[in-house]
Amino acid sequence: MALHFDEAEYAARRAALTASIRARGLDGLLMFAQESMYWATGYDTFGFCFFQCLAVGADGRMALLTRSADLRQARHTSDIADVRVWVDRADAGPVAQLADMLADLGLLGGRLGVEYDTHGLTAKNGRALDAGLAGRGELVDASDLVPALRVVKSPAEIAFVRKAAALADDAFDAAMAEIRPGADEGRVLAALQGSIFAAGGDYPGNEVIIGSGEDALLCRYKSGRRILAADDQLTLEFAGVWRHYHAALMRTVVVGRPRPRHVELHAAALDALAAVETAMVPGRSFGDVFDAHAAAMDARGLAAHRLAACGYSLGARFTPSWMEWPMFYRDNPAAVVPGMVLFAHMILMDSDSGTAMCVGRSYLTTTGAPEPLSRLPLALPVVG
Amino acid sequence: MALHFDEAEYAARRAALTASIRARGLDGLLMFAQESMYWATGYDTFGFCFFQCLAVGADGRMALLTRSADLRQARHTSDIADVRVWVDRADAGPVAQLADMLADLGLLGGRLGVEYDTHGLTAKNGRALDAGLAGRGELVDASDLVPALRVVKSPAEIAFVRKAAALADDAFDAAMAEIRPGADEGRVLAALQGSIFAAGGDYPGNEVIIGSGEDALLCRYKSGRRILAADDQLTLEFAGVWRHYHAALMRTVVVGRPRPRHVELHAAALDALAAVETAMVPGRSFGDVFDAHAAAMDARGLAAHRLAACGYSLGARFTPSWMEWPMFYRDNPAAVVPGMVLFAHMILMDSDSGTAMCVGRSYLTTTGAPEPLSRLPLALPVVG
Repeated sequence: MALHFDEAEYAARRAALTASIRARGLDGLLMFAQESMYWATGYDTFGFCFFQCLAVGADGRMALLTRSADLRQARHTSDIADVRVWVDRADAGPVAQLADMLADLGLLGGRLGVEYDTHGLTAKNGRALDAGLAGRGELVDASDLVPALRVVKSPAEIAFVRKAAALADDAFDAAMAEIRPGADEGRVLAALQGSIFAAGGDYPGNEVIIGSGEDALLCRYKSGRRILAADDQLTLEFAGVWRHYHAALMRTVVVGRPRPRHVELHAAALDALAAVETAMVPGRSFGDVFDAHAAAMDARGLAAHRLAACGYSLGARFTPSWMEWPMFYRDNPAAVVPGMVLFAHMILMDSDSGTAMCVGRSYLTTTGAPEPLSRLPLALPVVG
Repeated sequence: MALHFDEAEYAARRAALTASIRARGLDGLLMFAQESMYWATGYDTFGFCFFQCLAVGADGRMALLTRSADLRQARHTSDIADVRVWVDRADAGPVAQLADMLADLGLLGGRLGVEYDTHGLTAKNGRALDAGLAGRGELVDASDLVPALRVVKSPAEIAFVRKAAALADDAFDAAMAEIRPGADEGRVLAALQGSIFAAGGDYPGNEVIIGSGEDALLCRYKSGRRILAADDQLTLEFAGVWRHYHAALMRTVVVGRPRPRHVELHAAALDALAAVETAMVPGRSFGDVFDAHAAAMDARGLAAHRLAACGYSLGARFTPSWMEWPMFYRDNPAAVVPGMVLFAHMILMDSDSGTAMCVGRSYLTTTGAPEPLSRLPLALPVVG
């Protein structure tokens, strides 16, 4: 067992967890989100791709039900004492074994919170859960219980986030050293991700976004790498990741001579980022942050080229995405409070002229202005 | 739009898809699995982390509902003509917009297959789907429809799998060049994954499994890298990935002098792999393959040290896992047929002595014996 935080940190988390379970009038929580399990116990795996449940009682008792391949994983990475294994069989699902485990914990028949809003519980498994436990207690959606506890980071977590942010900055430098006319995107990606791995960092919750030419206007990963032209644009959106804690960064790098549109959009992106920073303070909402971004861009006539969201919370996150709630979109009432780690991305994609320009970085919120976690300059990066 | 296969390939897939939809008496299929969308249209994204649905009618008409960040992604990577965007709002979910889209396609009120068994549809979104479409047609679980079509690969797909297999072999060589007493696992991972990226390959569906010392007994990724000791063991389970098609490999590498138990378990693993190869032929089932593996190991008294599964099908797969159905586990009646790509991993983890020994490789099934897709020798890899 090798935990990444000390005993006191986990004790504080578990006290907050059980207090929250009790405050909601629940007898226990059925965790399906790997993020919740990792936060509460250190349990670190991608075994959530199969049915897996960590049941926690209001009194703090817990037991994990997982597949055989994760038995040792739980023992090596978490402090969960009670780990049970369900076995693949053509004729039986794991929910019956879950019910047995809940009975042992004294939770069967009780009022149980369920994490339905997670990739750790597919719709199929959710239906099996609802059917298998029907009439054997009350199931309540409690998907937001642990995220509400996770969204404000402890000092120990902030130290990991700072490490992740340093990995991100270093990874950008490693990528820049490979970017030039004629360079292969694949080598840029190898340098960027390799820099993070070599320093002990992790895979990101989603693939690094890398695209050039027309594909610089994309903000998702796609298969198929390209050779950079003499005049080109390369969009990179990535995260330094330390102990699964993310610090994201985004830049569009210009190769060769910047087009006037690049310069124009870059100025607009910086304007919007500055506006976002003024709104990223206690007393304001996530919707306010989005509005600041949208107003700055729309005032420059760029409404058609921006997205309907401009960032989100970050934390210790597993695939398929590093994006966490709350997100910066219109009318989101979630409040900005100190100790959050928030990624703000100013994305301008002008399909008419085929021009991309993106600037984004992560912040730690404070009682006043947010602290940027990146040491990188915001100036337009130009190579060659 | 840059598709990875030619028009005829997609036309054949879509013909098979609509024939299967009609054969099941369905009016259409609601796809939520990114694997299905990629297979049918080329659509390549991790945007399935949010609500997203590709609706396909029995007549082949289709439309995609996704978020704004994926509008261009769909246009650049797929041949889907009708792409619609739902917008994040505090007060509205996307299912109402899905119902509108189904009405436009003439599918609302019909008998529709749904992919419930995928990480592309969380339990929460599945419940919203069921509630939002209740009384407006019949929903039938059709999660297995596309997987049944995808499991046998076309010649064009097999060419991609061969490319992926070559990337895996090269990645192992790159890793071996970094493995030595005192080496940092992080640098080994950087070399392995960097080799795949530099050659134009993709991220794997799940993280590369890398663990040494006691953690060589794990078969999942975990955060936290280690320095190799003078006498050590390092388990690597990874995949070469080309256009998202996977070819997996697994080895435990011994650093320094192999323990007698390493040698003993390696011989058992090779025995089991040979037994598996004799069962991986048309006329046999996936359960038969598992039984061959288990019998070989159990005859050597190793029942306590093996897993309850010994491999699975591979294909073009997205996070959180590259593992596909069918899997090799007891009593699985799925039939082995020619043209499958199957990964067989012989995993022996002896917790009593702290010894790991794993050997695995991917195969193309034929009308006779399976063809190994790796050029690597099966001999125990020893370094230093």
